[in-house]
Amino acid sequence: MDFQAMSREELSQVKQELENRYHEVQALGLNLNMARGKPSEEQVELSMPMLDTLNSRSKMTASNGEDCRNYGMADGLPELRLLFAEMMGVDDHNIIVGGNSSLNMMFDVISCAMTHGFSDCEPWMHQGHLKFLCPAPGYDRHFAITEYFGMELIPIEMTPEGPNMDEVERWVNNDPQVKGIWCVPKYSNPQGYTYSDETVRRFAALQPAARDFRIFWDNAYCVHDLTNTPDELLNLWYECRKTHNIDLPIFFASTSKITFPGAGVAAVGASEVNLAILRKHYSYQTIGPDKLNQLRHIYFLRDMEGVKAQMQRHRKVIAPKFEIVLSKLSDHLGGKGIAEWTNPNGGYFVSVQVLDGCARRVVQLCKEAGVQLTGAGAAYPYGKDPRDSNIRLAPTYPPVSELEVAMDLFCLCTELAAAEKLLETK
Amino acid sequence: MDFQAMSREELSQVKQELENRYHEVQALGLNLNMARGKPSEEQVELSMPMLDTLNSRSKMTASNGEDCRNYGMADGLPELRLLFAEMMGVDDHNIIVGGNSSLNMMFDVISCAMTHGFSDCEPWMHQGHLKFLCPAPGYDRHFAITEYFGMELIPIEMTPEGPNMDEVERWVNNDPQVKGIWCVPKYSNPQGYTYSDETVRRFAALQPAARDFRIFWDNAYCVHDLTNTPDELLNLWYECRKTHNIDLPIFFASTSKITFPGAGVAAVGASEVNLAILRKHYSYQTIGPDKLNQLRHIYFLRDMEGVKAQMQRHRKVIAPKFEIVLSKLSDHLGGKGIAEWTNPNGGYFVSVQVLDGCARRVVQLCKEAGVQLTGAGAAYPYGKDPRDSNIRLAPTYPPVSELEVAMDLFCLCTELAAAEKLLETK
Repeated sequence: MDFQAMSREELSQVKQELENRYHEVQALGLNLNMARGKPSEEQVELSMPMLDTLNSRSKMTASNGEDCRNYGMADGLPELRLLFAEMMGVDDHNIIVGGNSSLNMMFDVISCAMTHGFSDCEPWMHQGHLKFLCPAPGYDRHFAITEYFGMELIPIEMTPEGPNMDEVERWVNNDPQVKGIWCVPKYSNPQGYTYSDETVRRFAALQPAARDFRIFWDNAYCVHDLTNTPDELLNLWYECRKTHNIDLPIFFASTSKITFPGAGVAAVGASEVNLAILRKHYSYQTIGPDKLNQLRHIYFLRDMEGVKAQMQRHRKVIAPKFEIVLSKLSDHLGGKGIAEWTNPNGGYFVSVQVLDGCARRVVQLCKEAGVQLTGAGAAYPYGKDPRDSNIRLAPTYPPVSELEVAMDLFCLCTELAAAEKLLETK
Repeated sequence: MDFQAMSREELSQVKQELENRYHEVQALGLNLNMARGKPSEEQVELSMPMLDTLNSRSKMTASNGEDCRNYGMADGLPELRLLFAEMMGVDDHNIIVGGNSSLNMMFDVISCAMTHGFSDCEPWMHQGHLKFLCPAPGYDRHFAITEYFGMELIPIEMTPEGPNMDEVERWVNNDPQVKGIWCVPKYSNPQGYTYSDETVRRFAALQPAARDFRIFWDNAYCVHDLTNTPDELLNLWYECRKTHNIDLPIFFASTSKITFPGAGVAAVGASEVNLAILRKHYSYQTIGPDKLNQLRHIYFLRDMEGVKAQMQRHRKVIAPKFEIVLSKLSDHLGGKGIAEWTNPNGGYFVSVQVLDGCARRVVQLCKEAGVQLTGAGAAYPYGKDPRDSNIRLAPTYPPVSELEVAMDLFCLCTELAAAEKLLETK
């Protein structure tokens, strides 16, 4: 029953029925949250054995023989640099393993560029008005960093192949005020899209107008597959080697959604030229990373096989939740002409497009019935979704029983908002 | 036998004997290091039980009921904020417990001021030439941060009462380019001086010409006593409350030299006005600190009594090393008129003043006989000791047997350099 095809009378009747059902749900007094890409307690439990791997009887030396309990090893444990190298597709000599937050490393790279600059250019703070490209919808905390530093955020259309590369090339290759672009190249936040080979090659072939332009390649979901047919991301590191553009990209990843959120380890990967700048910055900023937590991660994960095994355990917990979200969307909204959604092979989100002008209303209706969603517009620069139609669903945190209730409500609110909207113009 | 009172002939003969002994030591092929304020392996062993306190059977919730394994609690665990509050003498609501490095927190505060500013003033990056006061000799890594950000480092004379406050007041109260001062107020690095009550009161009474001037109060050795008559530091937080200057100081401390160097926890304390700026900065910079390591620290240290007990264990290891250093200095150099040194009640260093123009020579002679000392001049802004006479001794890292050998050599080299120097002018 396509909402768009209904008469005003049919639509009014549907709206009345939806409102009745909505009030019934409201009376239940729900208090559920599917706002954040946060692992569930069940997922967090998967890493509890890690806490037993490092104890007072453990070996405390890294593979290079150094004592992990004392100062030193600014680049992190060699064996963990190797593991991140494999995960991120970057040479291990080009990896620094840091603290518990890859967002912190991204922030620090931006901050370093602001105060000290890249490629012997002036610090960004001294270059006047600057712009940063933000494929949208995208990750709100990426956009927020560059907004905090006063840059103009330029939205770039996202497609199932990745950012619209015609737009990216036009900006990057012509405007020297454009200093960077935020990318989540695999299982993008929020759509779960993976950049196509063509997109990656076009990134590697950029000829930036600004010598200090950088690609912020946040491979947050590099091993976070949900199906037996995972997406494959072309390796930007090797593509940039081929195009002699190795100073363009800076790579990030973490174990926040492999082991513990907030108590994982994060890494940055970059060319020698970029690393020299970052190593200098870090040499003033810190005595070094928490190497005991790095050792704990090596004892628990061991190698890439260990990472994959751990991700299989996550998948067992998460995949059914994605199935619930997708089947609820399909059951309640399929064929009604009022919503479209992505069907990702991995990552942490499902992205829903409701009718134009309805996203904020859906989020509000859900909230007033006790279900917290990600704020409408959050995935856009300045929190402004020009069509007010995108909603990010985060299936991982709520237990299955709560997720079913929350999704029923979400679909109901999507229908109700659509009926309201369509009646405005009938 | 006072070197200064010797005739040229006596001095020449002494020099010859010292050279002979030096060559004998050189032949031993030593390879010892007393360059850094680094805990020894024996000290690091003291915290090994901490690794057993948090395991897969432990309670994972903080005192507020939140799960420490997941995202959240940007200010750190409430119970650890309380413990740092007691250690640092700052209200617990004014504490943020962060990651593993207090140096990192200091760097981030400076970086935040550079890009965003304090007290609604322009960001420091946009204010032109800036100055930072550096009580000297002092901590090289403090000075390095402000040098990295392009500030002019102004040396301030250090006295046994703390920085020369006449100088400090003259600069701070008159020059709006002066944006801050580095302080290690208890057991200062490298002298082990503790600021007098008068000094602390004068800090609290400063009337800075710059509204965005800040005191960086790095209480790194707040619980690091070595004797039964520990120094007492007047509480700057309460003094600043009295003078209505509470926005002046920013407090720092860490457990790097209580538990594990590099795997401890650090904290910053500040007024509501300052915290609002820092909390905003952190809200963009990170998802939050490693709360599992915070929980581990609470399970191990528990409270202030636990901290004191742990510091007693450190004292048992360290105090004999300080005694070796001081008795070697006294035995070999006492009454010779060629060196003076501090006798601290705590901290990590002994500061030696050799004859003017001899410090670099002593460090070089030691190095050429296989003993690495802190670089001469390192404790001064830009690494330049105007008198070339200060040497920082770090007794904690070498085992006792090595320390004795190293100190014998150090004293020998100090005598030899003095004889060389005095012969130049006899």
